[in-house]
Amino acid sequence: MSSTTQFNYADHFAKGLPPPSASATVDNPTYNFILGHTCPDLVPVEGLVEASARALRKDGPGLAINLHNGGLLGYLPLREFLVLKLGRHRGIDVTVDDILITSGSQPAAMLLNAALLEPGDTVIAENFSYVGMLGDMRMRKVNIVGVPVDEHGMRMDALASALDDLAGRGVTPKYIYTIPTVQNPTGSVMPMERRRRMLEISKERGVPILEDDCYADLVFEGEWEKAIRSLDDSGHVLHMGSFSKNLAPGVRLGYVVAPWEVLSQLLPLKGDIGTSTFGQMVVADFFHNHYEEHLETLRSGLRKKRDTLSAAISEHFGPSVEPNHPRGGIYLWVKFPDGVDTRKPLAAARKEGIGYNPGSDWAVYPADDRRNGNNYIRFCYALPTEDEIWKGIELLAQVFQRELGFPS
Amino acid sequence: MSSTTQFNYADHFAKGLPPPSASATVDNPTYNFILGHTCPDLVPVEGLVEASARALRKDGPGLAINLHNGGLLGYLPLREFLVLKLGRHRGIDVTVDDILITSGSQPAAMLLNAALLEPGDTVIAENFSYVGMLGDMRMRKVNIVGVPVDEHGMRMDALASALDDLAGRGVTPKYIYTIPTVQNPTGSVMPMERRRRMLEISKERGVPILEDDCYADLVFEGEWEKAIRSLDDSGHVLHMGSFSKNLAPGVRLGYVVAPWEVLSQLLPLKGDIGTSTFGQMVVADFFHNHYEEHLETLRSGLRKKRDTLSAAISEHFGPSVEPNHPRGGIYLWVKFPDGVDTRKPLAAARKEGIGYNPGSDWAVYPADDRRNGNNYIRFCYALPTEDEIWKGIELLAQVFQRELGFPS
Repeated sequence: MSSTTQFNYADHFAKGLPPPSASATVDNPTYNFILGHTCPDLVPVEGLVEASARALRKDGPGLAINLHNGGLLGYLPLREFLVLKLGRHRGIDVTVDDILITSGSQPAAMLLNAALLEPGDTVIAENFSYVGMLGDMRMRKVNIVGVPVDEHGMRMDALASALDDLAGRGVTPKYIYTIPTVQNPTGSVMPMERRRRMLEISKERGVPILEDDCYADLVFEGEWEKAIRSLDDSGHVLHMGSFSKNLAPGVRLGYVVAPWEVLSQLLPLKGDIGTSTFGQMVVADFFHNHYEEHLETLRSGLRKKRDTLSAAISEHFGPSVEPNHPRGGIYLWVKFPDGVDTRKPLAAARKEGIGYNPGSDWAVYPADDRRNGNNYIRFCYALPTEDEIWKGIELLAQVFQRELGFPS
Repeated sequence: MSSTTQFNYADHFAKGLPPPSASATVDNPTYNFILGHTCPDLVPVEGLVEASARALRKDGPGLAINLHNGGLLGYLPLREFLVLKLGRHRGIDVTVDDILITSGSQPAAMLLNAALLEPGDTVIAENFSYVGMLGDMRMRKVNIVGVPVDEHGMRMDALASALDDLAGRGVTPKYIYTIPTVQNPTGSVMPMERRRRMLEISKERGVPILEDDCYADLVFEGEWEKAIRSLDDSGHVLHMGSFSKNLAPGVRLGYVVAPWEVLSQLLPLKGDIGTSTFGQMVVADFFHNHYEEHLETLRSGLRKKRDTLSAAISEHFGPSVEPNHPRGGIYLWVKFPDGVDTRKPLAAARKEGIGYNPGSDWAVYPADDRRNGNNYIRFCYALPTEDEIWKGIELLAQVFQRELGFPS
């Protein structure tokens, strides 16, 4: 009769799936410099309480309706906020019909990649770039060509020669992926002149730009460069952004700005009966009322943490270690002396409760390649407190001393 | 120099994509009996205001942390609520490690299908079933074998013979998809005896069951049958549920209960850095405090609307039209006389502001097949007010009169 044997799914799965997850738990070290967390003290709790109450009392019954007030592109008041924000702060002149709300910028990247990429395709990215995007590209078995970055972002001479090289082999990349404003991980901000040049190259070569603008609200100082998308209205620039960095990753909201030709192809792939209306309602209400004020608080808080981390590194690692001085964002990109392999002390650091990401985690090229950033670390400074930053870096210097005989 | 020509994405998309969406707007007829909306007046606005404030003040700073408090499977307090609810109300004995939170039950279905289905695979479903699931199966180019349903759900004799027939052709289906409790659209509830038989068949044939329990909280009267998953601990039953029907679709929260072997394969496919922590926080707080009370209000409100719709149909269509009498849910499945094709008056009804779904919309088999339910309509009664139900059905009877010379 009926068997009580455990059903074995191994032969039941579709072929060619990514490897299963080894674990569902995530790593939360005491001194947490990893990933892209933001600052818990800068989550506007009371502002969100107020926004939740107002949004629910205004439009809460609409939660009963699938795709309420906005249809497949997302909740209309949130898209209306984005039209204002993109116009005022990013120089992008669009309507609500040009914006698709997604459940974060990782899902936005996944949708765009699902629509555009096939195995064997080629894409261009900054030599060091967002690991979530690189991971999705790799899962799709795409060739990633990394272009070097200097203090002004992706180098246009190197981009042009990478495209020449590909053209010589008959390859047209599907897009050029760039984070022009506070590049992840290097922190560079691309000047307007270089943005114009990149757009020129895109048009000359017929290769669209995928502009990831997720850190653009976090420029603390200096000029606030407009988006590349602000220079173009001919569909050469696909633009994406997020509420993860300017509000909190836990709201899981992002967006894509693209021509209808592209959005209409993303919608059936999204297929999820919409991103959370509840989340969109609350964030729309909060930002319609508190955008400028919140961003000011956020930038000043993050700036202080950036300076603390920079000071702690100088204090404990000395002059041979060179933190960058990013104009914004949540990361320091720190150069260790040539020959130091920042992957080596990783396990020992974890034992002391310190988590950091070696530079090679963000590298387009594999770890045995000389362009791989083995002597770099990306530190995220947003999550730890000032005390944790000081203590964590002090402990890390001790670990480096023990493991590498450095920095003394 | 640089071209101002619009970039043409047509040749840039991956091959084999689903057709692009024709429009991003959705249809909101005045008398709205379509889709699976719920009742705006039964959204617990003040309860959600209170839950939002309490959840944010308790754990709002955690929104700064990716995958906060629960990792990849979802926010721990929400999974803890589900462990209690599934135990008490569905007879399912699981731990938080057996549950994956998703952004609704449509995304849950998409994930399971992505993990399990390849083009050419075969699946079994009730003859009339959830259009979102059927649509996703069709997009994956899967053969759907429909099994007839009677007032007690999927017929087990027909299931056994469908499996015999497939076995004779060397085909083992990937799963048997069923909505045993308040089946969509027929409203049938499968008795325990038949659930046991289905599990027996599943084990004998080595074909797992995919149990969709999304209406199970909405049983108004009679026995409250336990889930099929309550009878099995050997992995033969994959179980999914939703907060769309027992709370509101706009929260976009659902879940999968499955062995780790399956969940670990869903996680890399999900790949979205988690479902909204904010939404999960608020719903966990609300249901930890108000589950029983809210469900009582909800069931009594929906029951009243069911009875109103049933009365309105009898009043305006007369005795030749037979509404079913579902023990719960949000739909009536209404049989019109043989030979009446409910698709014909659709356009005329829309002109009068009435939206309904012809039975064939839920049919596994195409519209020219005799099993296709052409003389049925599924009416969703949750969204329209009592007045709109009466007025909408009165107007619809007039439209039918004009278009079909029926019901007079």
